[in-house]
Amino acid sequence: MVSRRTALTAAGVGIAGAAGAVAVGSAMMNDNPDPAAASPGAPVPFYGPHQAGIVTPAQDRLHFVAFDVITKDRARLVEMLREWTAAGARMTAGRDAGLLGAVGGQPEAPPDDTGEALGLPASGLTLTVGFGPTLFRDADGVDRFGIADKRPAALEDLPHFPGDALKPEISGGDICVQACANDPQVAVHAVRNLARIGFGVVSVRYSQLGFGRTSSTSRAQATPRNLMGFKDGTRNLKLEDGKLLDEQLWAHADDGAAWMAGGSYLVTRRIRMLIETWDRTSLTEQEQIFGRDKGEGAPLGGKQEFDEPDFAAKDGTGNPVIGMDAHVRLAHPAQNGDAHLLRRGYNFVDGSDGLGRLDAGLFFIAYQRDPRKQFVPVQRNLARHDVLNEYIRHTSSALWACPPGVAGEGDFWGSSLFS
Amino acid sequence: MVSRRTALTAAGVGIAGAAGAVAVGSAMMNDNPDPAAASPGAPVPFYGPHQAGIVTPAQDRLHFVAFDVITKDRARLVEMLREWTAAGARMTAGRDAGLLGAVGGQPEAPPDDTGEALGLPASGLTLTVGFGPTLFRDADGVDRFGIADKRPAALEDLPHFPGDALKPEISGGDICVQACANDPQVAVHAVRNLARIGFGVVSVRYSQLGFGRTSSTSRAQATPRNLMGFKDGTRNLKLEDGKLLDEQLWAHADDGAAWMAGGSYLVTRRIRMLIETWDRTSLTEQEQIFGRDKGEGAPLGGKQEFDEPDFAAKDGTGNPVIGMDAHVRLAHPAQNGDAHLLRRGYNFVDGSDGLGRLDAGLFFIAYQRDPRKQFVPVQRNLARHDVLNEYIRHTSSALWACPPGVAGEGDFWGSSLFS
Repeated sequence: MVSRRTALTAAGVGIAGAAGAVAVGSAMMNDNPDPAAASPGAPVPFYGPHQAGIVTPAQDRLHFVAFDVITKDRARLVEMLREWTAAGARMTAGRDAGLLGAVGGQPEAPPDDTGEALGLPASGLTLTVGFGPTLFRDADGVDRFGIADKRPAALEDLPHFPGDALKPEISGGDICVQACANDPQVAVHAVRNLARIGFGVVSVRYSQLGFGRTSSTSRAQATPRNLMGFKDGTRNLKLEDGKLLDEQLWAHADDGAAWMAGGSYLVTRRIRMLIETWDRTSLTEQEQIFGRDKGEGAPLGGKQEFDEPDFAAKDGTGNPVIGMDAHVRLAHPAQNGDAHLLRRGYNFVDGSDGLGRLDAGLFFIAYQRDPRKQFVPVQRNLARHDVLNEYIRHTSSALWACPPGVAGEGDFWGSSLFS
Repeated sequence: MVSRRTALTAAGVGIAGAAGAVAVGSAMMNDNPDPAAASPGAPVPFYGPHQAGIVTPAQDRLHFVAFDVITKDRARLVEMLREWTAAGARMTAGRDAGLLGAVGGQPEAPPDDTGEALGLPASGLTLTVGFGPTLFRDADGVDRFGIADKRPAALEDLPHFPGDALKPEISGGDICVQACANDPQVAVHAVRNLARIGFGVVSVRYSQLGFGRTSSTSRAQATPRNLMGFKDGTRNLKLEDGKLLDEQLWAHADDGAAWMAGGSYLVTRRIRMLIETWDRTSLTEQEQIFGRDKGEGAPLGGKQEFDEPDFAAKDGTGNPVIGMDAHVRLAHPAQNGDAHLLRRGYNFVDGSDGLGRLDAGLFFIAYQRDPRKQFVPVQRNLARHDVLNEYIRHTSSALWACPPGVAGEGDFWGSSLFS
């Protein structure tokens, strides 16, 4: 593993340049990550047919950021995407964001890496980029970058769901970056350096840290717990689901937007949990709301976490063992036209709300082939019927088209859209 | 190590009660932690003459919370402190917050642990409790709990410093808990369960997550970096500084408040960094502002991080190698009447500020024997002269009297104050 250099000098061009030139061969393509080989510090390959950070076994920490594009100059935007890609390839390999000690090699220029990750390993860093609907046509209907006719039909704005309490200032956005890593300092460093590189082209719209993954994206990972104390994402799409991933996760060339082939659509939702209220709810009620037991995570009536829920089972009084409004029933693919999602959300605590309560919850992240057939019908079902709604508030929402992976050096994020 | 039980049942009294009864012997007292023996998942002893979480080798993650006391009933406050202590002893040992599956053993009662840390190890969790000046006499001058005459003189309100931009709603507070752990989910779980136990007695005033330690408190730890990219806390008080800790860290019985003997005074300051501005400053200027080089962390003119700064050295033109206003000079004990601090702050990113910038910085935490002789003169010096002030804003401030440690079962946080 190439590690970050530990000396930072304004005259470090030679050394750092040499390190930056290490080639990433095809043996390290990211299309078939091997979770068994992973250690928390190891790098995740950057290049491949799909972006890393989707089927990559979910890392422990998140820094998600949404940017507004503040230039109208298409060439500048594309140039920034090229620079981001080069920096992303370096940082995910555990190297600095820049090749030089100072921008342009000038001793009096700022450093081209902010330095807080010096000495830290790659830490499984992945950077996943997505484009929001407003990049194609802004709020005033303007096609700033000449790409309005490439907007995929699947990237239409999400509908309003019952109970939505969205704040516009932390919703939407032109470009997002999902930075995941096993060390939060590494994820924060990556986002910050992309923001630094994008100065004058993009501006941070909102940013969200997540401290604990709430889903597994590989059968090699244990199912973690959300802040309601329940195992989350038991029935998640996982990287081992070969054929299902092709059907449910990756966009196809003939889906309507050829440039998205190998990409995926991302829905992000900040879900505040009213945890103080939840914590005063009885264990029995909590388990009935989820339709699972809290300790093991087994569906009610079952014994083990991965037991198939028996939705037909009745108790001694003829009532369903798993309630008609239980979360596990409402969210199950069988109730939603076989719609699956690849979820990789994170727990968050953003201080307190000024009313004596923690501002805590789940930053929901879900990838899919077509949100019109997957997230939207599932969420409509949940928003209408789920008893869990009494304990949660959706405060932020966004939809993103994540382009296919970067094929190799010279290629860049979004090349199929902008070339 | 006793691990958290993995089954949560409303009828689990017997099993969990037995686990809860495991005695913590004197061999596990926390007065002499051995960092070499520590692993990230291992427990830190809870009982001892001093509270854990002060000289304990700094863990990676922080959840700090300040509470307002909302009762005027002294007995209820003391009862809560007893319950907190019992829950703290269990959680720091890697067990649940409660002994029972449901509060009071009633199947229809809420669970007595919120569940999100089930299956996670102790993760080095420490809980450190402090009392603010307003606990002794509130903003209206009322002595709610009959302890006004026990308020230490050292606990007088911090003075206003030049450049302070404090927000009252995230400053002060009656009681604080500093939860540190190597897993943020464990730290969050601990604070949340104390808030749950304190329902009706305390209310969350503000809460701060920190993701990366910025100081070492043991010579066995490498010096980490703050979000300006520099090593921070090179000259920190450390647990190996035996005699100096006695002189500079721990309050003595004859310091003016006998109940604080073995305790320590804690200053917390949320320091927002204007990192986007900093990132456009030249490397040379950054190094002159700190008085250290960025890569190694050596004082200017020196070679290695722990080289003693040579404040008398001049360059070829007769100017001091380390500027008169360099941070390393202004903060050095030699410039501040030999005042030392034990710092154990954390980096934070709290989303963005609505102006296109990350809301990021350092949550400063410093323990000391007497802030009037330590933090106050040092900060006064920095606030007046430090060039770093152009890049930082102090947005939150508080002072706390952290009582001595909990001696063993039956004792409780604050017993010397309330008994």
